[in-house]
Amino acid sequence: MWSALAPLGRHRGSGGYRRYPWTPVDAELREWFAGEAARRGLDVTTDRVGNLWAWWGSPDAAGPGLVLGSHLDSVPDGGAYDGPLGVVSAFAALDTVRERGAVPGRPVGIVAFADEEGARFGVACAGSRLLTGALDRDRALGLTDGDGVTLAEALRRAGRDPAAVGPDPQALGRVGAFVELHVEQGRGLVELDRPVAVGSSIWPHGRWRLDLAGEANHAGTTRLADRRDPMLALAAAITTARRSAGERGCVATVGKVMVEPNGVNAIPAQVTAWLDARGPDPDRVRQVAREVAGAAGAAIREESFTPDTRFDAALVVRLARLLDDAPVLGTAAGHDAGVLAAAGVPAAMLFVRNPTGVSHSPAEHAERADCLAGVEALAAVVEELAG
Amino acid sequence: MWSALAPLGRHRGSGGYRRYPWTPVDAELREWFAGEAARRGLDVTTDRVGNLWAWWGSPDAAGPGLVLGSHLDSVPDGGAYDGPLGVVSAFAALDTVRERGAVPGRPVGIVAFADEEGARFGVACAGSRLLTGALDRDRALGLTDGDGVTLAEALRRAGRDPAAVGPDPQALGRVGAFVELHVEQGRGLVELDRPVAVGSSIWPHGRWRLDLAGEANHAGTTRLADRRDPMLALAAAITTARRSAGERGCVATVGKVMVEPNGVNAIPAQVTAWLDARGPDPDRVRQVAREVAGAAGAAIREESFTPDTRFDAALVVRLARLLDDAPVLGTAAGHDAGVLAAAGVPAAMLFVRNPTGVSHSPAEHAERADCLAGVEALAAVVEELAG
Repeated sequence: MWSALAPLGRHRGSGGYRRYPWTPVDAELREWFAGEAARRGLDVTTDRVGNLWAWWGSPDAAGPGLVLGSHLDSVPDGGAYDGPLGVVSAFAALDTVRERGAVPGRPVGIVAFADEEGARFGVACAGSRLLTGALDRDRALGLTDGDGVTLAEALRRAGRDPAAVGPDPQALGRVGAFVELHVEQGRGLVELDRPVAVGSSIWPHGRWRLDLAGEANHAGTTRLADRRDPMLALAAAITTARRSAGERGCVATVGKVMVEPNGVNAIPAQVTAWLDARGPDPDRVRQVAREVAGAAGAAIREESFTPDTRFDAALVVRLARLLDDAPVLGTAAGHDAGVLAAAGVPAAMLFVRNPTGVSHSPAEHAERADCLAGVEALAAVVEELAG
Repeated sequence: MWSALAPLGRHRGSGGYRRYPWTPVDAELREWFAGEAARRGLDVTTDRVGNLWAWWGSPDAAGPGLVLGSHLDSVPDGGAYDGPLGVVSAFAALDTVRERGAVPGRPVGIVAFADEEGARFGVACAGSRLLTGALDRDRALGLTDGDGVTLAEALRRAGRDPAAVGPDPQALGRVGAFVELHVEQGRGLVELDRPVAVGSSIWPHGRWRLDLAGEANHAGTTRLADRRDPMLALAAAITTARRSAGERGCVATVGKVMVEPNGVNAIPAQVTAWLDARGPDPDRVRQVAREVAGAAGAAIREESFTPDTRFDAALVVRLARLLDDAPVLGTAAGHDAGVLAAAGVPAAMLFVRNPTGVSHSPAEHAERADCLAGVEALAAVVEELAG
């Protein structure tokens, strides 16, 4: 499966992946998913949002099923595993279960959520959030990418009807439980010397957009005293984000910056920066954002905020016992499993060891043996929860 | 002339101009120049670099002539006057001289220098510097734009032969004197309540590129202590540029920033920033650059450096007297006239009043009456220097 997936959306220069939603590359990834499902005789359905579902057994006839899966999109220059490992492992686990001759007692589904990373329109987990109603459809359809293209227009260009977008209780109702396998985005399993862990919770996580207004002018002839240079506000935002997060036990990042007009000899008219902040409780995360906005003197807009998400406790304990007392780890990364858990779906995650801990980079990696251990764990989950 | 020029390269969103060298818009500007020359019966020649020259009379037969003109390219989202005002006024001054029935005793030329702003390849006054040999041809041809296209490739795409690029002593030798009219990029003439000034000198001016290396990683799961986030170095560069320039009586600007991969939830792998610094003497300007590089812990590369340029003193005095004792002003902006002066060509500048002082922005402006005063001044210059 990997060999067909590997070249899609890979950038020659960086070696990383640029798999953005509702692009031609995204359409190829969707075809890949449909092909893998068809090869296994599974029907593929697309919900109102555009998430892809492949079902073994009918959840409409036989009641809600167990769903495995993750997402196929990437951050800019992302790695090969973040997202795809969960989808590939789900197909592989299904093969393992079938090879053993097991016939599940309830339907088993595989999902590829759309637009998990938010790399194009700035809102993470857009596919699952729209599905559950956590993201307002009108707000989502009006989001724009770097070229000013709205999500609504991007959907149209991808051959989809934006009018259909909205919460889909029918598709969500088919999910009796959701287990998302994901490459670990830290070194917890390396330190514990274990291949697979069970996820316990996701830290509160917010994203804010800072609009830093200035006045375009000539870099040579404008006196320092006459300048309104928004780069100085950007510098204040960056340094305050780091200091404030450090003081509060949070993490905060300014990872994306747009400068207008972005000329060497022009004082910028406008700088837009995005703040990503996460921490052990929602208040502290919001305090970091407020401090950054204050230091930058900026208009700030919350693009998303997800409070602390705890996965289903009974499910977490059951999976950890099933998997040879696998370690139970929290994570500061957001995931579709967290969105479903917040919507009341029993959900949990499995993490596969990442030797370097590096994520959202071409250096992200997982050893083959650990990936196979992940598949084996998912197969055991199917036999336990749908056996 | 303005009505045909106004729509070329104008960006609908910003209302500013995006006239970058060796693009389709640039080709339209060149056609406009050729058309204005043809309408006046002037031959147009292109030198080895791609600068455009329209000659009234033969400088090869009759000896070096007086040249007027400026450039047609713009910074990103630049104004309508910076560059084009000098070219349009040159054509208009020639019309004025002819209407009066004057026949110059030496050839009169009009020039449009290529790539004055350096908006695409990062080096200002590339056209005039290549002409005089101040910019190395191999270095220039290897410069890349934001899409990784080299100048050599851009020239090929524009139908020009990069092998021909290099110093052109023959074209330069035709220039007996050069007078560049330019919209003022400050409020000196507003304060003096005068429409036109004569330029005396150009401040030393350097551009540096700062490569700020980091390590791409996940914005949520990477502990602050484990991060190598180049945004912090950017913040240090921005604040140090302002402080150091202020302490030394210079100006310094970080106007252009590129972030890789530029994702909201990704610690950047790489930030590239450009520093523009100018001041009353070369040492102080270089000190600012060194301090910025030190604060950012950055590899720094000098992309250009122009020492203090004094225009031809006899010519400056002669023009000021000729123009009703016009005020004599220095400028912190670089110009092709400065490049020619540094190469030993008697050169000077005329500045036309700018009500707001704003430059490199769509808000840049000059009143019609002041533009006409500029044309009248240029006509007087032709009658004085070529009469």
